[in-house]
Amino acid sequence: MRLINIDHVAIAVHDLDGALAEYERQYHVHPEYREVIADQGVEEAMLPIGASYVQLLRPLSPDTPVGRFLAKHGEGLHHIAYAVPSLDDALGHLTAEDVELIDQHPRLGGGGHRIAFVHPRALAGTLIELVELE
Amino acid sequence: MRLINIDHVAIAVHDLDGALAEYERQYHVHPEYREVIADQGVEEAMLPIGASYVQLLRPLSPDTPVGRFLAKHGEGLHHIAYAVPSLDDALGHLTAEDVELIDQHPRLGGGGHRIAFVHPRALAGTLIELVELE
Repeated sequence: MRLINIDHVAIAVHDLDGALAEYERQYHVHPEYREVIADQGVEEAMLPIGASYVQLLRPLSPDTPVGRFLAKHGEGLHHIAYAVPSLDDALGHLTAEDVELIDQHPRLGGGGHRIAFVHPRALAGTLIELVELE
Repeated sequence: MRLINIDHVAIAVHDLDGALAEYERQYHVHPEYREVIADQGVEEAMLPIGASYVQLLRPLSPDTPVGRFLAKHGEGLHHIAYAVPSLDDALGHLTAEDVELIDQHPRLGGGGHRIAFVHPRALAGTLIELVELE
């Protein structure tokens, strides 16, 4: 198990255009790309900041994980994503250590990367995403 | 205004030793240093991950900002910190743009850096810290 870096920090928002306009006005940060991930029920925008991204997440409907998060908590920090060199190795290690996973097997995430989510019960109430960088 | 990178992502925890042990067991990540910041009512541990840190925050008492956060939300993501080349320039820009600040003027944070917090009402419900890197 080795974490390369913080790939991104995800923030749930109601209004993606509005949040992008505010990131530009307040911090002069511009999105590198926007993408709909139908599988996760979100539209996401990736804002490059140094070697990482801020990912703004807008739910495609209220009945999605991010939609339910917004209804319960309002806008705010949603998850943190660590880049790993091998997702198979990382999931193998976490499984051997009895860490509670959301995804037992990799699936396809934004930017075409293989990803998997680890349950927030496993560590400090934090939803963790692992992203395989090739 | 220019953001250099994500300096750190802060996570509020009840049990700092326990969270450090889990980060080591699950992700093989070790703290670079621990520090009590009496001014902010926290003990913090900095876990280097690539060019950024995960900062674990333990409140020194329930009657502190992080203590109240834990009572209300439980453990989890607390704030995101962006590194800036000049905190005076950054605060000048945000003030000119009428962005709601928590700290109108820089104060001293962990590692001896000058820092300031921006109110979560200003952008996507996210508590943002600006850290001046020299």
